[in-house]
Amino acid sequence: MPAPSLDDLADRLGEAQLLTDPDLLQGYRQDWAKAPNPGMPLAVVRARSTENVQEVMRWASAHGVPVVPRGAGSGLSGGATAVEGGIVLSTEQMRHIDVDPVTRTATVQPGLYNAEVKAAVAEHGLWYPPDPSSYEICSIGGNIATNAGGLCCVKYGVTTDYVLGMTVVLADGTAVRLGGARLKDSAGLSLTKLFVGSEGTLGIVTEIIVRLIPEQPPRSTVVGIFPDVVACSEAVLAITSRTRPAMLEFMDNTSIRAVEADLRMGLDTTAGAMLLAQSDLTGSDRAVETEFMAEAFRAHGASEVFATDDPDEGEQFTVARRAAFTSLGKVGSLLLEDVGVPLPALPQLVAGIEEISARRDVPIALVAHAGDGNTHPIIVLEDDDEDRAARAQLAFGEVMELAIGMGGTITGEHGVGRLKAPWLPAQLGDDVMDLSRRIKSALDPQGILNPGVML
Amino acid sequence: MPAPSLDDLADRLGEAQLLTDPDLLQGYRQDWAKAPNPGMPLAVVRARSTENVQEVMRWASAHGVPVVPRGAGSGLSGGATAVEGGIVLSTEQMRHIDVDPVTRTATVQPGLYNAEVKAAVAEHGLWYPPDPSSYEICSIGGNIATNAGGLCCVKYGVTTDYVLGMTVVLADGTAVRLGGARLKDSAGLSLTKLFVGSEGTLGIVTEIIVRLIPEQPPRSTVVGIFPDVVACSEAVLAITSRTRPAMLEFMDNTSIRAVEADLRMGLDTTAGAMLLAQSDLTGSDRAVETEFMAEAFRAHGASEVFATDDPDEGEQFTVARRAAFTSLGKVGSLLLEDVGVPLPALPQLVAGIEEISARRDVPIALVAHAGDGNTHPIIVLEDDDEDRAARAQLAFGEVMELAIGMGGTITGEHGVGRLKAPWLPAQLGDDVMDLSRRIKSALDPQGILNPGVML
Repeated sequence: MPAPSLDDLADRLGEAQLLTDPDLLQGYRQDWAKAPNPGMPLAVVRARSTENVQEVMRWASAHGVPVVPRGAGSGLSGGATAVEGGIVLSTEQMRHIDVDPVTRTATVQPGLYNAEVKAAVAEHGLWYPPDPSSYEICSIGGNIATNAGGLCCVKYGVTTDYVLGMTVVLADGTAVRLGGARLKDSAGLSLTKLFVGSEGTLGIVTEIIVRLIPEQPPRSTVVGIFPDVVACSEAVLAITSRTRPAMLEFMDNTSIRAVEADLRMGLDTTAGAMLLAQSDLTGSDRAVETEFMAEAFRAHGASEVFATDDPDEGEQFTVARRAAFTSLGKVGSLLLEDVGVPLPALPQLVAGIEEISARRDVPIALVAHAGDGNTHPIIVLEDDDEDRAARAQLAFGEVMELAIGMGGTITGEHGVGRLKAPWLPAQLGDDVMDLSRRIKSALDPQGILNPGVML
Repeated sequence: MPAPSLDDLADRLGEAQLLTDPDLLQGYRQDWAKAPNPGMPLAVVRARSTENVQEVMRWASAHGVPVVPRGAGSGLSGGATAVEGGIVLSTEQMRHIDVDPVTRTATVQPGLYNAEVKAAVAEHGLWYPPDPSSYEICSIGGNIATNAGGLCCVKYGVTTDYVLGMTVVLADGTAVRLGGARLKDSAGLSLTKLFVGSEGTLGIVTEIIVRLIPEQPPRSTVVGIFPDVVACSEAVLAITSRTRPAMLEFMDNTSIRAVEADLRMGLDTTAGAMLLAQSDLTGSDRAVETEFMAEAFRAHGASEVFATDDPDEGEQFTVARRAAFTSLGKVGSLLLEDVGVPLPALPQLVAGIEEISARRDVPIALVAHAGDGNTHPIIVLEDDDEDRAARAQLAFGEVMELAIGMGGTITGEHGVGRLKAPWLPAQLGDDVMDLSRRIKSALDPQGILNPGVML
C-alpha cells in the first residue's frame, strides 16, 4: 500500500511544523531507552495546540496511520519509539502555563519540563511535588503518560495524585475536557485518572490541570553509610513503619563509585550502601524525626551517620542520588529496571538482585526510592561484549520475574513502554490484560495510538 | 418473560444469604435519597465473599438480570435503587480488615463502615483520612463507589487518593485483582482509579487496599460568626490562597438554627453564617496559622471570632456541622445538592443559590466544605405541600445548572446516582458522555450493572 499523502495534513496544520527531512526524523525515532528496531516515521509533527493534534488524529484515523506521541524523549521504557510509516506527534512546542494561586492549580501544556512547572508555580509560593530524577529534562506530558514518580513520593504521592483535569484528543480527533480545577468531582466515570499512566495508548493529552500545594519548609538531611545493602534496606522498614520522611533514597556501592568518579563530590566509595533521608517537619518535630532516623540507621549497622540542617548541603546528596543514571551511563550502556515491591519484601528483593547479578555475571548497580519499595536495578553493559549483552537480557527479565513473584510491579514510575511489554501479562494476568484490551479497543478501535506500547 | 429461577443461584451461594421475603426486600429498595419509583427486586443477596459475588454475576449475566450493588444504604443520590426483577447485591456482611503497619496499608472488605476502618487503623497509630459527614453509617465500599470526600479533603484529598488496589467482580463474574500495596505502580492502565467513583456501573468491588498515613496531631479550631453568607465565602478565598487548613467548613443561618433546635449546643442562631477552620500544624506554625485565619475572619466582617486549642471543644463544632443533614431532616423532607465550583466562584455560587431560593420560594439551607468549593444546598420540603415540592424540583435543577455555568460540578462527593443523572450530559457534554458509554459497553455489554445510574 502506498504511503498516504501528507499534503492534505500539511494544509491543515497552520502554525504546527511538519518535518519530513530524514536527517531531522532520525532524532525522533527513539527515546532515552533506545528500544531496538524503531521504525522510520513518515513525518514528525511539532504541534502547538489542541487543534493541531486534532488535525493529526483526524488525518491519521482517516488513513489508518499509527501515531506515536512524544514529550521530551527522556522516557526510559521505549514508550516513544517511532513506528514505520507512522507519525511522531511531538508536544515539545506546547509550552504554555497559567497558575491560579486561589484555586491552587496550574493549567499546563504538555511540553513544559517538570522543572519549568515547578519554577513557574514557585513564583506564587506553590509547589508541584512529583519530581522524577530527570525533572530538568522530562516533560510534564511524559510524566502524565507514565504516571511518573520521583523522590518525593514516599510522602507526597505520585503524578496521578496531582492531576485534576485534562484535555485529551481521542483517536478520531475528538477533543474532550475532563475534570477541572476542583479538588472534588464525582460526576461521571473517573476518566481523568484513566488517561494518567496510559502511555499515549488511549489518547493524546494536550492540556493538564494540576493541583498544587504550598511550598514546604527547607529540609534537614540524614545520611547513613552501611556495610551492605540488606542491612540498609532493613533500616528502611524500621523508619517507614514509624515515621513519614520527606525523602528516603538508597544507593549501592556501584552507583556511589560511578557518581564519585563522575562528579568528585567526596562520597565514601568504600560504603556498601548509603541511605539518604530528609525531614520537612517544622519546629521540634523535625529534630525528633531526624534523630529517630539517625538512630534507626545506627541500630541497623550504619558505620557512619551524618546529619545536617543546611538545605544546600543536603541538596548535594540529592544531586548525587539523581546523578546515578547519567554517571553510570558513562561506565557503559545501561538496561534500566524500575521494579517495586510491597515494602516488607525490600530486603528480599535486594538480596535476590545480588543473586541474579552474580549468577548471570553482569554488574547490576542499585539505586532506589527505598521508602516506597521502588528500586532501579541498573544493568551495566560493555560495548562489543555480545555475550554479556545476552546475559544482561536474561537478567533484565529475571529481575522483573523476581519482583512479580513477591507481589510487586515491573514498573513503579517509568511505564511499560516497549521494553517491559513482554512481562506485563505475567504481572497482571490474562483477565486484567483482557479487560485492558477491551478498554483500548473501545477508545482506539483501529489501534493507531502508540501501537506496540504496553498492551 | 417469566422471572428466571433463583434455585440455581441459591445452590451456589454457600454461606451467603438469599432473601426473597417481600417484607425483607422492602428495606433494600432505596437508599437514603429515596429516589422515586424503585423496582421490586427478585431477591437480595447478602454476599460474604468475592466468590459469592462472582456466583451472582455469573447467574445474572447468564439470565440477563440486572444487579444493583448496595453498601450501607446511606447514599444521597439514589445510586442503590432496586430495579424491578433484579438482584440487590448487599455487601453489608463483608466486614473483614487487615492492617499492615509496615506498608502502611489496609486490606478491607466493602461492608465495613468508614468509622470502623478509621478505628481499626488507629490501633496501629495510623489514619485513613476520607471522612464523609456520614462516616459512622456509610460503608467503605460505598465511599469507593462515589469517590467520597468529607471534611478533611481540603488538605488531605478524596477517596481515590487513598486507593492503591482492589478486587473487582466484572459483569460476567470474572474477578480481577488490580494494583496492590505499592505506592507506585505504572504497570498497565490505571484501572484501579477507573473503578473508584464508577457507582457500581462497571463492576462490584469486593476488596480494597487503602493507603494510610500516620495519625495527625490534635487540632486547634477557629470559629467565625459572619453577618452574611457572601462575606463569609470571601473569607474562605482569603484563607485558601495563603494557607492550607486541615478543615474549612461553612454553615448558613438555616442550618445553624436547625442543628441548634435539634441538639441544643449553644450555637449563635442569629449568625448569618459560620466558618469552622482547623489547623493540625505543630509547634509555632500552628499558632501562626490559627491567628492568620482568625485575622482573615475579622478582615472579612466576622462579628465574633472564637479560637480553641482544646480538641474536644473543637470537635463539638465539627459535630454540629456534621449534624446538619439529620437536623434539617427533622424539619422536613430534604432534596440534597452537592454542587462544587472552582474556588473563586464560591461567593457567586452562594449568592446565586440565595436568588434561586427567593425566586422559587423554597427554603434552601446551605452547608459547605467551603475550602474546596464543594457546597451542599439542602432544599427543605414540607409534607403535603405538592406545589412546594414542584417548585423544589425546579430549584434542584437550577442549582446544578448554576454550578455547571460556573465551570463547576453537579456532584463533588455524593455521586450522580439516579437523581442527578438527567443533568450529567449538561456538565460533561456529548463527547464525554459518548466516551463514558463506550467504556461502559466494553465492560458491561449487557448493561446489567446498576442500570439507570449515572449513564
